[in-house]
Order: sequence, then structure tokens, then C-alpha cells
Amino acid sequence: MAATTPPAHTPADSAKPLVAAVDIGGTKIAAALVDSSGALVARTRRPTPARSDAKAMAAAVLGAVEELAADGRWSEVVALGIGSAGPVDTVAGTVSPVNIPSWREFPLVRTVREHPAVDVPVTLIGDGVAIAEAEYWQGAAAGYRSVLCMVVSTGVGGGLVLDGRVHGGLTGNAGHIGHISVQIDGEDCPCGGRGCVEGLASGTAIARYALAHGWRAPGGDASAAAVAEAARQGDPVAVAAYDRAARALAAAIAGTAALVEIEAVVIGGGVAQAGPVLLDPLAHHLTTYAALPFTRGLHIHQAHLGPDAGLVGAAAAALRSI
Amino acid sequence: MAATTPPAHTPADSAKPLVAAVDIGGTKIAAALVDSSGALVARTRRPTPARSDAKAMAAAVLGAVEELAADGRWSEVVALGIGSAGPVDTVAGTVSPVNIPSWREFPLVRTVREHPAVDVPVTLIGDGVAIAEAEYWQGAAAGYRSVLCMVVSTGVGGGLVLDGRVHGGLTGNAGHIGHISVQIDGEDCPCGGRGCVEGLASGTAIARYALAHGWRAPGGDASAAAVAEAARQGDPVAVAAYDRAARALAAAIAGTAALVEIEAVVIGGGVAQAGPVLLDPLAHHLTTYAALPFTRGLHIHQAHLGPDAGLVGAAAAALRSI
Repeated sequence: MAATTPPAHTPADSAKPLVAAVDIGGTKIAAALVDSSGALVARTRRPTPARSDAKAMAAAVLGAVEELAADGRWSEVVALGIGSAGPVDTVAGTVSPVNIPSWREFPLVRTVREHPAVDVPVTLIGDGVAIAEAEYWQGAAAGYRSVLCMVVSTGVGGGLVLDGRVHGGLTGNAGHIGHISVQIDGEDCPCGGRGCVEGLASGTAIARYALAHGWRAPGGDASAAAVAEAARQGDPVAVAAYDRAARALAAAIAGTAALVEIEAVVIGGGVAQAGPVLLDPLAHHLTTYAALPFTRGLHIHQAHLGPDAGLVGAAAAALRSI
Repeated sequence: MAATTPPAHTPADSAKPLVAAVDIGGTKIAAALVDSSGALVARTRRPTPARSDAKAMAAAVLGAVEELAADGRWSEVVALGIGSAGPVDTVAGTVSPVNIPSWREFPLVRTVREHPAVDVPVTLIGDGVAIAEAEYWQGAAAGYRSVLCMVVSTGVGGGLVLDGRVHGGLTGNAGHIGHISVQIDGEDCPCGGRGCVEGLASGTAIARYALAHGWRAPGGDASAAAVAEAARQGDPVAVAAYDRAARALAAAIAGTAALVEIEAVVIGGGVAQAGPVLLDPLAHHLTTYAALPFTRGLHIHQAHLGPDAGLVGAAAAALRSI
């Protein structure tokens, strides 16, 4: 697959534009200087004060930006991209992350832009869209025209590339595959919906299902990774927990394929690291749910980018804004 | 809402380009000359010989084209658009309509283009995409940037407008909302999937549910329209049949909103003519399934275009191809 923009992993070169990237999640705030080849040439991170007030949250983000601004290469920065936990509103420049209660319609773009060190364009994208940007630029989605990128972790999120362009949607929240319903009479979801994919396929859901059906967490480790290990050993409840998650993911992926047409799915996040324990039943269930001719034969890839995906995606959005 | 292209119903004007449109469905083949205002200035239709062989099917389509070609204005035609029951493959120019068994990967574009009367570009789109083209050009979707157009009839189909452009997808089948699963453990669907929207919300499904739950068809009329009439009279089984359909539609519409972000839904087809019997529970269930902030407040419209939507949509695609 050809890369869509400059090839990955080219050595940093001072003639290339630099961008600043910020990735705001529920547990950490990361920031980096990123060159036009996607290399992170400087970086910083700190915990997200998710339970603090809006001002303390803003101070943490601006602190990360200031740390980057102290780098000698800051003057070469031509744009700044922010990927944030959602929902976001890329039109208003605001964010309302589910896991950061003090930020509701918080004017993040304005807050960053008004910092004295920042005199470049500021671009906001949602974290799912950022993952899609990153995998499309540098990772497993590169070269496809239409592809769904997913993160299956403690939550389930995603982003779409359609016809060769990242599809952020009208307010930057498209690709929110964790909250589509695949079981209309299913359990209530904290989002307000019912039978959402996240409630069936997240790491949390997998562990909860296994525990509820008699799986004993070894040494008290009730993580999805521990369930995956049990499934590898043939524990039938653990196998069933992953099968149920895989079925929900298959229905959602197939539904996405029917709705927008995609060639491939890229899956990252902790749960995807279970590998065949998740991906084998996923491929199996796709043969049921993705039955229409134009939805068959989807390529399934594990994500190439790890924890830096959000930064790389924010950088991609910043680069495209200039 | 402003129209997206020339306003509807402007009188035909010989200075405007004419296009030819063909609409191939499971029961009828319609064809028309359409001016650039969307007015049908000549038309013909004939039954679809759906159970005949591929050659007889082709002859029926070419017969409709020949009838148009006999019109004095044929020389003014600058492009020809075909909307066809799907699946289609707009890259290969082939069609494989579920309800026309003799056409499997039938080279429809080539067949029409090779007819001696046809010396203009030929464009193929799927019938769901055609509905979206038509409603976006002339109907209830005009003026929105992102909107889902649906047909709820004996089947359930649809098409998407995203960011101001009709999204046909890689092979022209996007918007296939009837075959996304909203019930992973639901009934088998003829498409091969399980718990598809069509199996819960089509007119056929509504009538089948009502009959299975003790509704007595008045005078043997077991149509969805008869169930709607019974629901209007307060028959609890009939009400439940429409409620179940509305719930499936709500989950699918909400899922679409989460995946791609839409502002509105346009619903046409026979079942939508039930009006409030369908649309009231649909609005109610949307408050559950469309719970994320960016999916709330969807506008719901009944389609403006009737049985001519397929022709108008094929004409829109043809006009855009020139």
C-alpha cells in the first residue's frame, strides 16, 4: 500500500515544516512536535486532571504547549493540531469529553489560540477521527480509498476514510461506531442508547460478561487481557466472551460497509491485542453479517500505530490545515 | 431550504440541456426525457420481465430507450442516466438486482451505450442512491449538507448525502440501510445476514408481524397499509407492529448519525405513507437511540418525490456527469 502523503520514517529535516500536536484523553495529555514525515521530534506528557475544574484542565493543556514552546524548534512550527476525547464540535471549536465532566462545550481552540506562545492556526479533531488520520497517513489504512479505523479498548471508537478523505462529519464526530446499536432490545448504555457496540465489545464489557458467567479472574486480574489468556487456554466462558464481542463488532463493521462502502477495517486498542482470540471470530461472524456482495471480502488489519496514534493524527490534521 | 441546483418546476426550455433517464425496478422499467429543471418532458414505462432471461430483460430496457429516441427532442439529449435495483457496480457498469435473477453482473452500461441511438455518456447509479439524488436536487433533502434518504416499502433502501455530495460509495451501493443489523441475534435475512432492518421494518415485515400476533386482515387485505389503518383505529397488535418497525428504523438512523453525522432523514415509500402511525413512534425511539449530542435533534421529513424519484435521480446523475 502506498502512503498517502510523505513516506513514513524519513529522518527529520529542518527544511520540512514542523507542527505541534496535542492529544487529550481521559487519563493523559500528550503533546509533541511532529515533522512532515510523521516523526515525533520532541514530546511531553502529563496526567489528565479529569476530575478538576475547567481551568485546571486548561492549565494542564497549556502547560504541555508551553513545554513544547520552550523547544528551540518551536519557531519552525507552522500549525497546531489538537485531538480530543469527544464529543467535540469542530465548528464551534469546543469539546465536551464524556470522561472530563468539567469541560462541557469548553472553548478549547480559542483557549489554545489565545496563549501568547501560539501564533499559528489551531485545528481540532475528535480522537476517533485522529486515529483514522494517523492510520491513513502512516499506518494500516494507507493506500485504501475507504476504510474504517477502530479502537477497541475500555471504550470503542473509530473514524472513517471515505473516497480518499478522512470523513470527520459536520462537527468532527463521525465514525462513532461504539455507539451504534446492534441489539435494539439490548442493555441500556451510559450514552442513553440501548445495545450499543461498546456495551458488548469493549474490554470492560468482555471482562464483565466473563465474570458474570462464572469465569474466575486469576490472581484477581479481571482484565480483558486476562480473559483473552483464558480463551487461549480454551476456557469456554472466556471464548464465549470474545465471541460475543466479535459478533457485535462484525455486525457494526458490516453495517458500516453497507452504509458507506469500505474496503478494509483497521483495529487497534488493547482488546485488539488479543489477536486471533478476537480476530478469528470476527472474521467468522463477518461472513454472516457482511453478506451483500459489495460488503464481502473486507480486509481486516491490526493497527500499526500504538499509543502515539492520537498525536500523529492531530499532526496530520494540522499539516492539512496549512 | 434552498435548492441545490436549478429550482424545481421551471418550465422546460429548449436552451437547457435534456437528459434521458431510465429507472429499472423489480416490477417496472420507466424512462423519461428530463430537462435541467427536473421536469419530465416525455416518458414511458413497461413491466419488468423480471423472470425472463437476460436478453429479454435487456430488450425491455432498450425498448424503453428506443421509445424515447423516437421523440423529436432526442437530439437535444446530452447524457443518459440509469438508476437500477441493486446491487450495482458502477465501476464495472454492471448490475445484479436481487429481484431479477437472470441479471448477474449484467453489463448494463455497455448494453445501453452500444445501442445505435445512444451516442452520449451513460451513467449508472443504484436505486437508493438515485432517491438521494432526487430528494437532494428537488425534494425534502435540498439545502441540507448531510442527510439520509430512505425508502420504506416492500423493502428498505436508502442513499446518503455527505458534506453536500451524494455519497454513492466505491461501487454505487452506499446507503444500503435495509441490510444493517440492529438485532445481532435476530431472524435470518434473505441477504444472508441476521436481524436486518428490512426484516423488521419493511411493509412485508409489518404485515407478517401483525398476522403472526393475531391481527385479522380485513377482507383479506394483509397489506402494511391495512395494518396502518388498524393502528389508527387503536388495534394494539397493529400499533405494536408499527412500533417495532419504528424502533428498528430509529436504531438504524441513529447508527447512521453516529457513523457519518447527518442533519436530517427523508423517508419515502409506501410504509412512510402511514404518516404519524410510523413517524410518531420513530421520533419517540430516536430520543433513545440517538442519544449522543451530535446525533440529537434530527429533522425527519416525508419524501417530496413520489414514484418518479428514481427517474429524477437518474437524471440528476446524468446531468452531473456532463
